[in-house]
Amino acid sequence: MIKVTVWNENRHEQKNPTVQEIYPKGIHGAIAEFLENAGHDVKTATLDEPEHGLTEEVLNNTDVLVWWGHLAHDEVDDEIVNKVQQRVLDGMGLLVLHSGHFSKIFKKLMGTSCDLKWREADEKERIWIVNPSHPVANGLGEYIELEKEEMYGEHFDIPAPDDLVFVSWFEGGEVFRSGCAYNRGKGKIFYFRPGHETYPTYYNKDVQTVITNAVSFLAPTGSQAPVYGNAKPLEAIGAK
Amino acid sequence: MIKVTVWNENRHEQKNPTVQEIYPKGIHGAIAEFLENAGHDVKTATLDEPEHGLTEEVLNNTDVLVWWGHLAHDEVDDEIVNKVQQRVLDGMGLLVLHSGHFSKIFKKLMGTSCDLKWREADEKERIWIVNPSHPVANGLGEYIELEKEEMYGEHFDIPAPDDLVFVSWFEGGEVFRSGCAYNRGKGKIFYFRPGHETYPTYYNKDVQTVITNAVSFLAPTGSQAPVYGNAKPLEAIGAK
Amino acid sequence: MIKVTVWNENRHEQKNPTVQEIYPKGIHGAIAEFLENAGHDVKTATLDEPEHGLTEEVLNNTDVLVWWGHLAHDEVDDEIVNKVQQRVLDGMGLLVLHSGHFSKIFKKLMGTSCDLKWREADEKERIWIVNPSHPVANGLGEYIELEKEEMYGEHFDIPAPDDLVFVSWFEGGEVFRSGCAYNRGKGKIFYFRPGHETYPTYYNKDVQTVITNAVSFLAPTGSQAPVYGNAKPLEAIGAK
Amino acid sequence: MIKVTVWNENRHEQKNPTVQEIYPKGIHGAIAEFLENAGHDVKTATLDEPEHGLTEEVLNNTDVLVWWGHLAHDEVDDEIVNKVQQRVLDGMGLLVLHSGHFSKIFKKLMGTSCDLKWREADEKERIWIVNPSHPVANGLGEYIELEKEEMYGEHFDIPAPDDLVFVSWFEGGEVFRSGCAYNRGKGKIFYFRPGHETYPTYYNKDVQTVITNAVSFLAPTGSQAPVYGNAKPLEAIGAK
Repeated sequence: MIKVTVWNENRHEQKNPTVQEIYPKGIHGAIAEFLENAGHDVKTATLDEPEHGLTEEVLNNTDVLVWWGHLAHDEVDDEIVNKVQQRVLDGMGLLVLHSGHFSKIFKKLMGTSCDLKWREADEKERIWIVNPSHPVANGLGEYIELEKEEMYGEHFDIPAPDDLVFVSWFEGGEVFRSGCAYNRGKGKIFYFRPGHETYPTYYNKDVQTVITNAVSFLAPTGSQAPVYGNAKPLEAIGAK
Repeated sequence: MIKVTVWNENRHEQKNPTVQEIYPKGIHGAIAEFLENAGHDVKTATLDEPEHGLTEEVLNNTDVLVWWGHLAHDEVDDEIVNKVQQRVLDGMGLLVLHSGHFSKIFKKLMGTSCDLKWREADEKERIWIVNPSHPVANGLGEYIELEKEEMYGEHFDIPAPDDLVFVSWFEGGEVFRSGCAYNRGKGKIFYFRPGHETYPTYYNKDVQTVITNAVSFLAPTGSQAPVYGNAKPLEAIGAK
Repeated sequence: MIKVTVWNENRHEQKNPTVQEIYPKGIHGAIAEFLENAGHDVKTATLDEPEHGLTEEVLNNTDVLVWWGHLAHDEVDDEIVNKVQQRVLDGMGLLVLHSGHFSKIFKKLMGTSCDLKWREADEKERIWIVNPSHPVANGLGEYIELEKEEMYGEHFDIPAPDDLVFVSWFEGGEVFRSGCAYNRGKGKIFYFRPGHETYPTYYNKDVQTVITNAVSFLAPTGSQAPVYGNAKPLEAIGAK
Repeated sequence: MIKVTVWNENRHEQKNPTVQEIYPKGIHGAIAEFLENAGHDVKTATLDEPEHGLTEEVLNNTDVLVWWGHLAHDEVDDEIVNKVQQRVLDGMGLLVLHSGHFSKIFKKLMGTSCDLKWREADEKERIWIVNPSHPVANGLGEYIELEKEEMYGEHFDIPAPDDLVFVSWFEGGEVFRSGCAYNRGKGKIFYFRPGHETYPTYYNKDVQTVITNAVSFLAPTGSQAPVYGNAKPLEAIGAK
């Protein structure tokens, strides 16, 4: 049972009746629901809670953190961002969704601008699987089709993914690396593109499959925490 | 429960009393034993069986194939090699051990010579973990130490691994990329260096942990089999 | 001055008046011309020459081999393929164009099926640059647009490129990894997608820029040839 | 002619007579000298100059920035670090040497802690080439041997390099990924391990070859600067 914390900025939901109608329990509520149904131990946290709901206790009890933000990236406290970064390097998984590409935490972990092209034009997105062996693609067909989504287009200013899983085709003529896996320290990161707030994307079964798969993929694993700093020799030096 | 077939050339065991003493049930027997204890459904197959024990039925019922060979790479039938390659591209995991670096199947899947430096000198090997987030390293400390092993040294003529997990230090002055993960088609491959026949390496607990982890990592996953060939358009062409 | 050999199957040019009209000197002739204008020392070779024009002397005097084939992959002699592979591992660059994805040499070096989706429907291709720092993209804008090309679609069954430079958008709804760089041994390989024989693609200035850049990128470089095989220790073993 | 700026903290040289004796013109002076001899247009800059010698004019006129720092990483102004990061994303090459692994600029571009093991014990380092096709290894033998160097050991907390070129062996029993290439935005980064201030490492011919090669490798290339932000469709949307 993986301990998941779904973090959402939760601002569009307060301001925009369209978003409210689509996601009456918030985007975090919609995501938490299907992750719970998949058998995970799921909590949510939002920007306006104290410490954004990401206290040390919460972070230390999180295996995988899901991140959705857009309007208020700048309001996320730098100290919290530093703590999340450290937790990722220590082994916590991080699933960054859609406009989270511009979040402080994603930019900090990538080291690049994470900038891209974008357009809101009710256009079709077709997400092709370019690595059919990847666990995040488990159970999918050859592509995911979303009738209406926001467009994100290349160049997407990220480090080349350690594993590129999805590439999107957009009706308006662009492509996008929309499923990107990274190892950082003892942690894993996955970026998944879709999920504009004015579309019911997180109710799409294939999108739910990807997010559910990603949670399993991102759960902590690996060797013991590395030891850093001054180190005694393991072999005699200059003994010859 | 993962269906594992442990394939062994099983020739040193027939010829060399030292090897026979260390591995009375063969290298395949020793590996099968701890994989069974880990809860997998394990079978073995050897070179001198009809079709090397790798009939279509066996291959089709194998999730992960473990491969140990050395003396008799050339005696492996090309047709069997082709079938194993196809099964990997179709999703079967392949764990290549030690001198399997020069097997027909590994060379075919890598596309390179897979050549390296080597030396038998009873020397110490220390296998460092360079990707502590990788599932194959799960439960290990910072390194694995083997008091006596054969040396394999760089340059190792392989494609850069999709994920480099281990790097070996050798007493005699060399290094080696000794844990290498690859995606090929719908399948995954892992190469793990240690395991010279005259040392009891496969009884080492850490080595057993790596091989057990690798079997889980290599088990089939991912999206449906891609469709290749002529394709109808999904969108109208030239309609504007 | 880089020594380039442009190899072409040169069969469509013999059979199909459309191709003959577009490429009166053959596809190899068209490519050789702009590479010569770029200052390289260019020769051509074709399937129907003795040893396909790829004698040992020719190969040993080639820095970068350009490969175009389609109809007659099977007629290429396995022995020549083996020699080309060895030359690549020894440092020769290899630029594989379009339908060369299914050539014996490319499949051998990749270790996968190299299969894909395809369609001839006079459709638009837009080749996006996803790694703007790569020398093969030097001097290009954000994308290359080809009004009419054959479609190649994912899943493209190749190893994940060591460097993914281009991703294509197709009018009919597909995407494709259309610029892929690989290191193999001491050599480098670049696969570049466009160039169906019934379109004047190799006269497109951007396509010519890519091919010209690729030749420079693929020219031999790097350290001395590695030494393989039995190796004396560089440090005392067991001396403690 | 590549415009190189060699940046050095230049503090050990002020404090430590041993360092002063080895590098009477500073580490920057020693590096600048052989880069000038290689035909580049070389300037130097140091921490205690106004704006650390890295004014906008200097940065805008730098193709490749070489970085050596150790004692005073924290004294480097965050604003300058941000400017250097932006210049790298815009295409400037960055060569990070030795203890620069802990510089603000390297950590910012990597997104990880960049931590490692270390030891000062006058021990032998042997730097093996694991990618003999890489331009940074041009002209080298199979390895570089340094009689006495500081040890850096794994785990090195960096993103997996886009290209791993060197792996070090240390007498005391450790290994280290000591030559790491990265693409970030339109820029390239190379990390090269050796160069502790109390050893004459930068006078070693092989080390000089690597640094000289790296400067050529890191020089700006690639496509035009990508355009980010809101984008008009290139194809009609919803026209069917």
